[in-house]
Amino acid sequence: MGLRRAAWAEARATIQSLLSANNQTLQGDAGLVSKALVPQSSATMHLPADIGDYTDFYSSLDHATNVGTMFRGKENALMPNWKYLPVGYHGRASSVVVSGTPLRRPLGQTRPADDQPPVFGPCRLMDFELEMAFFYGGQGNALGDPVPIERAQDHIFGMTLMNDWSARDIQKWEYVPLGPFTAKNLGTSISPWVVTMEALAPFAVDNYVQDPEPLPYLRHQDRYTFDINLEVAIKPESSGQESVVSRSNFRHMYWTMKQQLAHHSVTGCTMRPGDLLASGTISGPEPESYGSMLELSWRGSKPLTLADGSTRKFLQDGDEVIMRGVCEKEGLRVGFGECRGVVLPARAQ
Amino acid sequence: MGLRRAAWAEARATIQSLLSANNQTLQGDAGLVSKALVPQSSATMHLPADIGDYTDFYSSLDHATNVGTMFRGKENALMPNWKYLPVGYHGRASSVVVSGTPLRRPLGQTRPADDQPPVFGPCRLMDFELEMAFFYGGQGNALGDPVPIERAQDHIFGMTLMNDWSARDIQKWEYVPLGPFTAKNLGTSISPWVVTMEALAPFAVDNYVQDPEPLPYLRHQDRYTFDINLEVAIKPESSGQESVVSRSNFRHMYWTMKQQLAHHSVTGCTMRPGDLLASGTISGPEPESYGSMLELSWRGSKPLTLADGSTRKFLQDGDEVIMRGVCEKEGLRVGFGECRGVVLPARAQ
Ligand SMILES: [Ca+2]
Ligand SMILES: [Ca+2]
Ligand SMILES: [Mg+2]
Ligand SMILES: [Mg+2]
Ligand code: NI
Repeated sequence: MGLRRAAWAEARATIQSLLSANNQTLQGDAGLVSKALVPQSSATMHLPADIGDYTDFYSSLDHATNVGTMFRGKENALMPNWKYLPVGYHGRASSVVVSGTPLRRPLGQTRPADDQPPVFGPCRLMDFELEMAFFYGGQGNALGDPVPIERAQDHIFGMTLMNDWSARDIQKWEYVPLGPFTAKNLGTSISPWVVTMEALAPFAVDNYVQDPEPLPYLRHQDRYTFDINLEVAIKPESSGQESVVSRSNFRHMYWTMKQQLAHHSVTGCTMRPGDLLASGTISGPEPESYGSMLELSWRGSKPLTLADGSTRKFLQDGDEVIMRGVCEKEGLRVGFGECRGVVLPARAQ
Repeated sequence: MGLRRAAWAEARATIQSLLSANNQTLQGDAGLVSKALVPQSSATMHLPADIGDYTDFYSSLDHATNVGTMFRGKENALMPNWKYLPVGYHGRASSVVVSGTPLRRPLGQTRPADDQPPVFGPCRLMDFELEMAFFYGGQGNALGDPVPIERAQDHIFGMTLMNDWSARDIQKWEYVPLGPFTAKNLGTSISPWVVTMEALAPFAVDNYVQDPEPLPYLRHQDRYTFDINLEVAIKPESSGQESVVSRSNFRHMYWTMKQQLAHHSVTGCTMRPGDLLASGTISGPEPESYGSMLELSWRGSKPLTLADGSTRKFLQDGDEVIMRGVCEKEGLRVGFGECRGVVLPARAQ
């Protein structure tokens, strides 16, 4: 990941060749096969990189509009900066964990009633956020030297699925004026393998039409949005029955990853291989495509009914959240695997 | 730093013993002295730790009130959450640099007029923030396991000076609703050595009286505020004449480092040795003790006159900002050295 883009391509080509039907290097050598290949079921998955810094953007227009509408009304839904720059914030790298890691419902500070003092206790509005994230690859830049959008492609290594677990009641109370903090650093899950941008190239689609046109440092003409089908399922512990609660697509993103990287580094921020940059919640225009319980249940006003008959406004203890992503086109299929995690009950106080 | 507190104490005691007047281990062995001691002038200073994550708090009541008054008026200066929790946000670990590193004036996106579209160009309101920061030490916690305030002391290794360089015009435009981003990740400077909490113990003073009383997870009775004299000087390149523009003191902090750490980890955030947690701008009640140009010049309305006769609303190219910190008491003196950095002109567009 720290090597140049040409090296990524070479590694991919080499592995593809070794695994192709007409290559006998592996197939002809049972001893080598047993050393080189491990059944996925007996492998322990780890984070795909040592993540130096993690950033979360907010780049779905539908998500930003939904959340803004709920909190500030339809007229003031989008902040004036939203269509001029990819809004984002620095997250907590230490709390990024690999798919399968259970997440404990946090204890924290909330203010249930606006005219009462805050209280301490278990999060009541535990949520997921359906996201994807990319890893920065290649050489890091020097402090003060932005990564221009023309070179962004050389530093976008590949993508994973991501669940940005969110404690909505904690977030609501703490986030002014400096942004989300303890509501987010309780843990963020990603899928264990990285799909490289080269593998995704066949699934490129037209970029979102941006109006107003972005400033020159954020402009690029090539297509850098991707048709990636995404779904979120909830599997309650009690029933074990999985229900898909959201079907979305990465193509709904307003800002591209190139724009995110160019903006992130525009004032000279040092980027390093292994840095993780996330999309923000990926909501589409249809209610079924919303990427969080906050939006799916419209702040709890429209509970979802699951396959086992139970209802959900937000996540309950024992709920496993499973995110999946796959690209399919003309017989070609590229899978992201899963990003899963179960909500454990809060610790005793 | 990753070892236990007892090990920090042992290392300190051993070094103190080796350097004491009546210890002959070093003094009696010129060869050993020449190996063990390097003149500071010929040493290259580095960051004192590999910083996994960096967090910036906002824990000076005077600073929060000043900034809030400028942006929202006196009545709404403090957000309702401010006195209930130490407000903070995740910063960019990759951009933390050691004292002496020059900082380039960033190019970025600002909106000079509220009724006009934003523009791209050099930051016009370049600022410093006088801060101190502590390093997390000892074993990291597991995800989901908070560091309770009773054990916070075992994980506060020691302190440095910090300059949180800030591009005010960029910050103003970008920070809603998720907090500062490119206005801060352009670079953050810290002093090169860490003063341990054990060395600071003689300078402990009464904590700020907090009203309302914080929630139980943020309560501690022992004194954990420190009398550390701080100053900020500006040295323009053209004159080379240094002017002290602020004299403040760490004792002005409303929230203690114990409270910051307990809050940071309350929802289960993983803390790791080498993590850096900063105070936020340290402003005192007197205008001379304000810790940023934003406050010292009151948003540019009261320019400062420097020793060379020039005036400043914000920083100019070639200005070197020098922060110093020292504790003094009954013949005892503990110095933090300096945190310095010069503002280089913006890159050509
Ligand atoms: Ca998010
Ligand atoms: Ca700051
Ligand atoms: Mg998260
Ligand atoms: Mg900074
Ligand atoms: Ni980090």
